[in-house]
Amino acid sequence: MKPLQNIQHYLTQHNIDAAFITTPHNVFYTSNFASNPHERLLGIMIFQQAEPFLICPKMEVPDVYAAGWAFEAVGHEDTENAWDVLKKACDARNVSLQTIAIEKDHLTVSRFEAMQQRFNAAFTEIDTTLSSMRVIKNEEELQKMREAAKLADYAIEVGINALQEGRTEMDVLNIIESAVKAKGYSMSFDTMVLAGEKTASPHGTPGNRPIRRGDMILFDLGVVYEGYCSDITRTVAFGDVTDAQAKLYDAVLRANEAAIAAVKPGVRAMELDKIARDIIEEAGYGRYFTHRLGHGLGISIHEFPSINGANDYALQRGTVFTIEPGIYKDDVAGVRIEDDVVVTKDGVEVLTHYPKALQIVPFR
Amino acid sequence: MKPLQNIQHYLTQHNIDAAFITTPHNVFYTSNFASNPHERLLGIMIFQQAEPFLICPKMEVPDVYAAGWAFEAVGHEDTENAWDVLKKACDARNVSLQTIAIEKDHLTVSRFEAMQQRFNAAFTEIDTTLSSMRVIKNEEELQKMREAAKLADYAIEVGINALQEGRTEMDVLNIIESAVKAKGYSMSFDTMVLAGEKTASPHGTPGNRPIRRGDMILFDLGVVYEGYCSDITRTVAFGDVTDAQAKLYDAVLRANEAAIAAVKPGVRAMELDKIARDIIEEAGYGRYFTHRLGHGLGISIHEFPSINGANDYALQRGTVFTIEPGIYKDDVAGVRIEDDVVVTKDGVEVLTHYPKALQIVPFR
Repeated sequence: MKPLQNIQHYLTQHNIDAAFITTPHNVFYTSNFASNPHERLLGIMIFQQAEPFLICPKMEVPDVYAAGWAFEAVGHEDTENAWDVLKKACDARNVSLQTIAIEKDHLTVSRFEAMQQRFNAAFTEIDTTLSSMRVIKNEEELQKMREAAKLADYAIEVGINALQEGRTEMDVLNIIESAVKAKGYSMSFDTMVLAGEKTASPHGTPGNRPIRRGDMILFDLGVVYEGYCSDITRTVAFGDVTDAQAKLYDAVLRANEAAIAAVKPGVRAMELDKIARDIIEEAGYGRYFTHRLGHGLGISIHEFPSINGANDYALQRGTVFTIEPGIYKDDVAGVRIEDDVVVTKDGVEVLTHYPKALQIVPFR
Repeated sequence: MKPLQNIQHYLTQHNIDAAFITTPHNVFYTSNFASNPHERLLGIMIFQQAEPFLICPKMEVPDVYAAGWAFEAVGHEDTENAWDVLKKACDARNVSLQTIAIEKDHLTVSRFEAMQQRFNAAFTEIDTTLSSMRVIKNEEELQKMREAAKLADYAIEVGINALQEGRTEMDVLNIIESAVKAKGYSMSFDTMVLAGEKTASPHGTPGNRPIRRGDMILFDLGVVYEGYCSDITRTVAFGDVTDAQAKLYDAVLRANEAAIAAVKPGVRAMELDKIARDIIEEAGYGRYFTHRLGHGLGISIHEFPSINGANDYALQRGTVFTIEPGIYKDDVAGVRIEDDVVVTKDGVEVLTHYPKALQIVPFR
């Protein structure tokens, strides 16, 4: 069943008159129309008993139809009140709207108030339902995510090949992004290339730090393929590696591999987090693994479920998520190894394939 | 007065006990801490009667202090409920919280409900106040915006120099972004390079369309300098230009220049929009100018005020905004010319300087 029909089915089952979908990613999921409306109103109104419509800035209406939207696309101009346009389009459907489902995790208080002023309805949330739908990828989606992961592998390879004394983090980042763009794709988030002491900051920013012999280099990047994201991290040594660095790397790699090996239908997010965390703790680095194990992945780079120690969500076949343990120790290095995995019928398929054994890039 | 003191002053004046600032850009404005927390909680709680604190993911706490934040930074871990952490930090301040100001244009319904569950307070909005503060740039901010605009001029020059038969939109885009990154800066939004018939889509996406003789080429891009954005559009002809294209270009240019010439303290947004629109209408292209004249610019690429035909906001000294009339006519071309301008004591300063006379790039 297609997302739109799924939502209509949900509305019927729960006796909700309409759902207003406003997250750009959920709009894309429901309509195949990708758009960043900034502060302008973009949404899809789906009715239990009437034809849906998509509302967007007027100039984007042709793009909506080009994306394959088979129903009405209602345009609003900057000089109009978009909420009045929405109300009018709903009124034209001539159906009773006593209960409206909204995306409470996305809709702002101001927008909610604008709806409350115009619709004398009870409001309920549809976030959970949309997450539950998106968390299970169908084969078509998985195929796109495999392609996105292949492009991420390629980008890592480009980055590692670009390592050279004197080049800065930004130089290498630039070579990576150019190569991906030359293939006609875009990154799924701001590429991270960190060298030396900067690897120890899990959310560091690439800059003009030149690469030197003995640096660990951390790459964290992803590519979008037909609306679906990949997300990979690899850490390599440049020229030399110390015993302390190799030991730290080994703990991260074992944590990554053990968590991946444990993935199967029914395993809980918190169990995977614990498997990785236990290994890192036993290796003596427990307090340097300062973030969750991973996160769901798909149209959004961070989506449901969160793979952390407090989440007892049981993973199901078709869910794609990251496994990315990391250790950040100021006096040694930061190392993170991240793969994208999908839960299969009886185990796991790893989408990212770039090798993970500690790689010492020859000095050049 | 610094933003933080300004907000405290506002709270005192309006007898509001606290403000919770959650927009990443307003957090940056208030603290100089730039972060994209994704779905995690980031905010600054500012009290009328107690010391403020910043709440963020625990791993970012060192970055908060590195950015110069002089007060408490409260970290929350993925395994904790961030809203409980927020409540606890507020309780530790030991002040009564009967009224809390929130960013209604940013806070989601879910987050609002999380606050309502924990704070027995009345909630009021602080969006308008923050917008009013940010809309007036001080000299330090203007200096950053001048630098951002210079980088945008540079990026346009790089793009025009890169035009060459057979190169695709993405090739040229790539050359532009590489050049900007090589200087250590990042783009303020996804760069747009559109060629030929694609220029007629005001929100088109660059792709593998090769550049051909006779194409109009539209560049829309911006660069971030120390947290402040520029935003420029130039349209040039490649090799040849038809009379119809030149006529269309001339109307856009006259609209751009007339609107700029009318900028001064006290002029209303709608008046500027009308000046540009009248010129385009008189030239016979009225229905092909399908968007507003411009938008406020600063830390955000789109910020208050909107320069449209329905906004009677009177512009004041220190406000930076774009002036970007455009005509999109399928059978001729799309042309947009966008500058960043600031209202001065008695007129206007244009921040973007790349020449605007119709440029026919020699065929190569």
